[in-house]
Amino acid sequence: MVGGGAGAMIGEVHRIASRLDGHYELVAGALSSSPEKATESAAAIGLDPARSYADFEAMAEAEASLEDGIEAVSICTPNHMHFPVAKAFLARGIHVICDKPMTATLGEAEALAEIAGKADALFVLTHNYSAYPEIRRARAMVAAGDLGSIRLVQVEYAQDWLTEAVESKQAAWRSDPEKAGAGGAIGDIGTHAFQLAATVTGMVPNRLAADLSSFVPGRRLDDNAHILMRYESGAKGMLWASQVAPGTENGLKIRVYGEKAGLEWHHEAPETLWFTPFGEPARKLRRGGPGASPGGAGTDLERLSRVPPGHPEGYLEGFANLYTEAARAIRARQAGEPTPEGLLLPGIEDGLMGLRFIDACIRSATADAAFVEIAP
Amino acid sequence: MVGGGAGAMIGEVHRIASRLDGHYELVAGALSSSPEKATESAAAIGLDPARSYADFEAMAEAEASLEDGIEAVSICTPNHMHFPVAKAFLARGIHVICDKPMTATLGEAEALAEIAGKADALFVLTHNYSAYPEIRRARAMVAAGDLGSIRLVQVEYAQDWLTEAVESKQAAWRSDPEKAGAGGAIGDIGTHAFQLAATVTGMVPNRLAADLSSFVPGRRLDDNAHILMRYESGAKGMLWASQVAPGTENGLKIRVYGEKAGLEWHHEAPETLWFTPFGEPARKLRRGGPGASPGGAGTDLERLSRVPPGHPEGYLEGFANLYTEAARAIRARQAGEPTPEGLLLPGIEDGLMGLRFIDACIRSATADAAFVEIAP
Amino acid sequence: MVGGGAGAMIGEVHRIASRLDGHYELVAGALSSSPEKATESAAAIGLDPARSYADFEAMAEAEASLEDGIEAVSICTPNHMHFPVAKAFLARGIHVICDKPMTATLGEAEALAEIAGKADALFVLTHNYSAYPEIRRARAMVAAGDLGSIRLVQVEYAQDWLTEAVESKQAAWRSDPEKAGAGGAIGDIGTHAFQLAATVTGMVPNRLAADLSSFVPGRRLDDNAHILMRYESGAKGMLWASQVAPGTENGLKIRVYGEKAGLEWHHEAPETLWFTPFGEPARKLRRGGPGASPGGAGTDLERLSRVPPGHPEGYLEGFANLYTEAARAIRARQAGEPTPEGLLLPGIEDGLMGLRFIDACIRSATADAAFVEIAP
Amino acid sequence: MVGGGAGAMIGEVHRIASRLDGHYELVAGALSSSPEKATESAAAIGLDPARSYADFEAMAEAEASLEDGIEAVSICTPNHMHFPVAKAFLARGIHVICDKPMTATLGEAEALAEIAGKADALFVLTHNYSAYPEIRRARAMVAAGDLGSIRLVQVEYAQDWLTEAVESKQAAWRSDPEKAGAGGAIGDIGTHAFQLAATVTGMVPNRLAADLSSFVPGRRLDDNAHILMRYESGAKGMLWASQVAPGTENGLKIRVYGEKAGLEWHHEAPETLWFTPFGEPARKLRRGGPGASPGGAGTDLERLSRVPPGHPEGYLEGFANLYTEAARAIRARQAGEPTPEGLLLPGIEDGLMGLRFIDACIRSATADAAFVEIAP
Repeated sequence: MVGGGAGAMIGEVHRIASRLDGHYELVAGALSSSPEKATESAAAIGLDPARSYADFEAMAEAEASLEDGIEAVSICTPNHMHFPVAKAFLARGIHVICDKPMTATLGEAEALAEIAGKADALFVLTHNYSAYPEIRRARAMVAAGDLGSIRLVQVEYAQDWLTEAVESKQAAWRSDPEKAGAGGAIGDIGTHAFQLAATVTGMVPNRLAADLSSFVPGRRLDDNAHILMRYESGAKGMLWASQVAPGTENGLKIRVYGEKAGLEWHHEAPETLWFTPFGEPARKLRRGGPGASPGGAGTDLERLSRVPPGHPEGYLEGFANLYTEAARAIRARQAGEPTPEGLLLPGIEDGLMGLRFIDACIRSATADAAFVEIAP
Repeated sequence: MVGGGAGAMIGEVHRIASRLDGHYELVAGALSSSPEKATESAAAIGLDPARSYADFEAMAEAEASLEDGIEAVSICTPNHMHFPVAKAFLARGIHVICDKPMTATLGEAEALAEIAGKADALFVLTHNYSAYPEIRRARAMVAAGDLGSIRLVQVEYAQDWLTEAVESKQAAWRSDPEKAGAGGAIGDIGTHAFQLAATVTGMVPNRLAADLSSFVPGRRLDDNAHILMRYESGAKGMLWASQVAPGTENGLKIRVYGEKAGLEWHHEAPETLWFTPFGEPARKLRRGGPGASPGGAGTDLERLSRVPPGHPEGYLEGFANLYTEAARAIRARQAGEPTPEGLLLPGIEDGLMGLRFIDACIRSATADAAFVEIAP
Repeated sequence: MVGGGAGAMIGEVHRIASRLDGHYELVAGALSSSPEKATESAAAIGLDPARSYADFEAMAEAEASLEDGIEAVSICTPNHMHFPVAKAFLARGIHVICDKPMTATLGEAEALAEIAGKADALFVLTHNYSAYPEIRRARAMVAAGDLGSIRLVQVEYAQDWLTEAVESKQAAWRSDPEKAGAGGAIGDIGTHAFQLAATVTGMVPNRLAADLSSFVPGRRLDDNAHILMRYESGAKGMLWASQVAPGTENGLKIRVYGEKAGLEWHHEAPETLWFTPFGEPARKLRRGGPGASPGGAGTDLERLSRVPPGHPEGYLEGFANLYTEAARAIRARQAGEPTPEGLLLPGIEDGLMGLRFIDACIRSATADAAFVEIAP
Repeated sequence: MVGGGAGAMIGEVHRIASRLDGHYELVAGALSSSPEKATESAAAIGLDPARSYADFEAMAEAEASLEDGIEAVSICTPNHMHFPVAKAFLARGIHVICDKPMTATLGEAEALAEIAGKADALFVLTHNYSAYPEIRRARAMVAAGDLGSIRLVQVEYAQDWLTEAVESKQAAWRSDPEKAGAGGAIGDIGTHAFQLAATVTGMVPNRLAADLSSFVPGRRLDDNAHILMRYESGAKGMLWASQVAPGTENGLKIRVYGEKAGLEWHHEAPETLWFTPFGEPARKLRRGGPGASPGGAGTDLERLSRVPPGHPEGYLEGFANLYTEAARAIRARQAGEPTPEGLLLPGIEDGLMGLRFIDACIRSATADAAFVEIAP
């Protein structure tokens, strides 16, 4: 693991998620950019001091030279470090599991795409929300045509933790353009919402219009984004990302409407998927429960569940699904086998998509929220 | 009553709403533009045939000349008839209770504003959703500063009844520009959402950007609207109005976020208002139940309730609130007294606001959804 | 109307419910047992003073002798007056619409049954909750076998308004055995829950065990009832009625489970009926919306709705359904026609059932909550 | 681990729960009563074959003799094996973490209590639901007097998986009195509900009346239980446990009402606790979120959470809380330190309570559901 030292929320999440299904063991780390803190953090989580490194370059080099060196690295640093760290490990054939957004700039993302294309290692981006079973089911239902042609995509991600000027570790780097990149809310949570919509619908908009705001005095990045989206197919969408909406917690929510039916999913109750065929009663689909359509092709939902319906699985289990799928892909690769069917591993393409989204938002915002193309 | 003949949903709503609290008796009508149907409809609801008129002009003239002629008229026609009918009755000093949008065009709205300004009669616009007790409470809470300065307004109104090409009476005129005016979803339900946001926040945006769609082949007016809003104060908003979202029924919903707290209200459960002060547990406020703040000035919520909490009141009771407030205003006027305190009667200003909203949406839509000013 | 004077909640409910669909006009009353208050109350609601009576006997006699005397009377008095008032009007061939429980004692109920059997007038008991469209739908679904053979009936009715010792008008007589009869919560709300379960399932238990409590010091009647029920078919049930459960409002709720499926309905959202077939996704049925089974025999749900789905109808509309069904039955009787099909008018049988329920509860409670037979 | 071989749901739950926070490593097992299946299951989860035992006695003996033998054992067998297995390990000073109910009979439970009292090892019973943070918060609030004196306890646990005669592994032993003990639903889920009520209220009823049913033809144990409860304090309660309620999943739910306020918690949304002070708006308390009262004594809720509010934690995290508390208690004991403050580890007392509950249910059921004492 690189990053994820003491006090970092997301590092602990990666550690639990990797451990949950028993496919990973954490054996080495460069847990902080401060060597002292790296050492302390390593001790706190029981790492062998010999494999606690002062910086990621040293770690990549040392681990690559060990016979039983790490097979994969988790990158849990602030955004601006994703690129150099990923590059260092990919270059040595070590698989990378990286937090999102993929990089701080679109240029870096494109460079990383090239590097990853040539590397002998996997690159996985932890868009964890796309690994919830009911999101996978939604994707399968859209693909199977249960909704008919898609017309509308309403997605939102609302939080309240930046309602006031705050100084917590998580908030600090996220509101600093040097470390977070050009996007505030759009980078931190907007990319999740955008990727979730793409996962469910199988479509990416080609144009967007973005009205970005920084409501809290002194804040240097956006803390609220109001975005309109247009798809080549004629579908349209709205995306709202906010970190200043008091009373919301981690309110990711998606609604998709087609000619024949709608779907609705809220992160607050991630095991429920509403299916609303036009002219029929709404159906409440539940993780592990019976479905509305006769099984979407390529969906292997059982594999993403651990306990029966009614025994709530949540955020850590969803995150673990991604780690477990990555493990299966890595094992297959090590065995010279093809990637197992039914996996859905976000990677370079999702990362590029995220940076293009951020880039388009900023271009639109500087043009008074005019519609702009989402590259390429 | 003018309009509201057999098969018209909203005519029956106005009749029940007016009757519910016992302040009105329906004694005369021109219930349809077809004289034959007008006669049949009058018989069906038990009107005295002598006071069932073949057209509204005849009715206005005859009733104005009767000693016990009507005191007020309800206008339940398609949109394009609102203006001439309202004009005919206002000119004769008969109070007008008119469905929304106020007129078919902004020009008519401005003309009616002038007429009403000179008339010796009230003009009430039935923005019924603004008469729900919990909406009034929300308004009082915002006015009292419970949310702090407002930052965000997220409002939506989603229906599914126009998902397919339909030919019902209600759908027919609503999708005909000659009768509905230039707005489809934006006129029929967008104006409600816009007025609701203004009611709750006490603010009207000064700019908007609108992406309008007609998803159903052959439809001549918009059936979906994606709208961004900006307020002079720096607040921002999103408005979504759709009639093609399968599984939604009459999904009006508003969320308002300020520096200190949020509010959330859904029409599906109109007696519940969520109050979410930052850093405190969410509170579920209920019609007739205890409040969060020590009573907003000018709010007289008890008057808007008939039965204790837990005995659901709904759409017809909300609509009746408006009729009853109109009756109180009319009685006061007849008695030469000032309008009672605490009334909130939507009228000409709300009507003008609605038409300006429609007008701005269409101007923006024709400019690729660029931000435009909302007149005046 | 007899009873229902100023300050009486249920009197106003009966007045609105009768007026809502336009089938009744209130023309006479004996609104209070205090002549002075009767006069004031009559004036307050605009009754002709000549038809405001000082007592119900005078009213029955006078109205029976008028050519255009009342056709029906609403009884909204405390429970102990139901019997004498109903008797007085039935004896004169005036239809009776009476609040529940039917009488204060089982003896009175049996006497009234005999009187009503010989009277030339209808007797309707306002078990209003049984007139919600989704309750009627539930009944039709059970009757159609959608649930298979019924195994379990879980019904509850929880309120909190008697949590503390209170002196309001409503509370006063309800906690006085002289006026309420032997049942407190079991009479006031338990009978509603019991009748609702019978309406939905089409079955009445033959045995019950009741643990009754009076939690508030000084209270003379039960304010909480814990009841077990057994049906002849082998089905079992639980009934909870409480008036001391803080945070509940008017929490009537029923869940029925059969061999094949379950149903769930909450008064808090009376337009939603959950249908849960075993091994299939739960379906959310909505008033006015599409159903799960191909229409139950004898159900005429459209007639019980006024506005489209998503425009909430509530308590007063449900109550009005009963008044309107009574009007249809009365009109048919006046015309010498058979009672229209599809009506479901609670009457003498429901009243007897309620008093037998109360009687059994008290017998069980005095036997340390042993199971007892529910007469006859 | 003893029990928990391939196909056993609860074994996998214990494995994940123990691993989640990183305090346990699974190194030995007797995973099945069938030696062959034990070997296969051990291989499937990667156990060292040398430490996969054919029976629990062999395992206890061998592990106790190893220098690095297991410190604790998880017992995941059918109920009838809990006693002999627990005895074998406790006798050797190995800590026991045992699934519920503690034993198959009350006699065994009493014997185990004696054994455990003399053993140099901890005995922990996995009443996992009592380890949800919001349940702990509820307990602290009751203890702090936020509800006033408790009057009512309404608890239920409804499932539907035994609606039909089923032959799955889980169902097979649970409906066999030889393996499950005398209780069906009352043992499997009723004990959870009973223990949850005791956890929240801090009180155990002294009397109960139970109506037990076996609805599915041929079923030998109860699949539905309707139970009334009485507390020495005068409080009363209802407990419903069912495995034949179609549409319910794992529907554990508790509501507690006192003189001043109520609390409500549903397992379906385990991170939400409703607090309903009489005469005030309901408050929605959320895991990790702000509270209603100024922190209950001995509650250390932060320790029971891993991720911020809005990132759902569920069943496995709740179960892991118990494992982690056990680890902390074990470590303290090993270090010769007192048990850390704020732990709440269900153990022998809870196990005895559960068996006394089952015993009382059966005694009452055989006496036509008369109230009986809950021993001792």
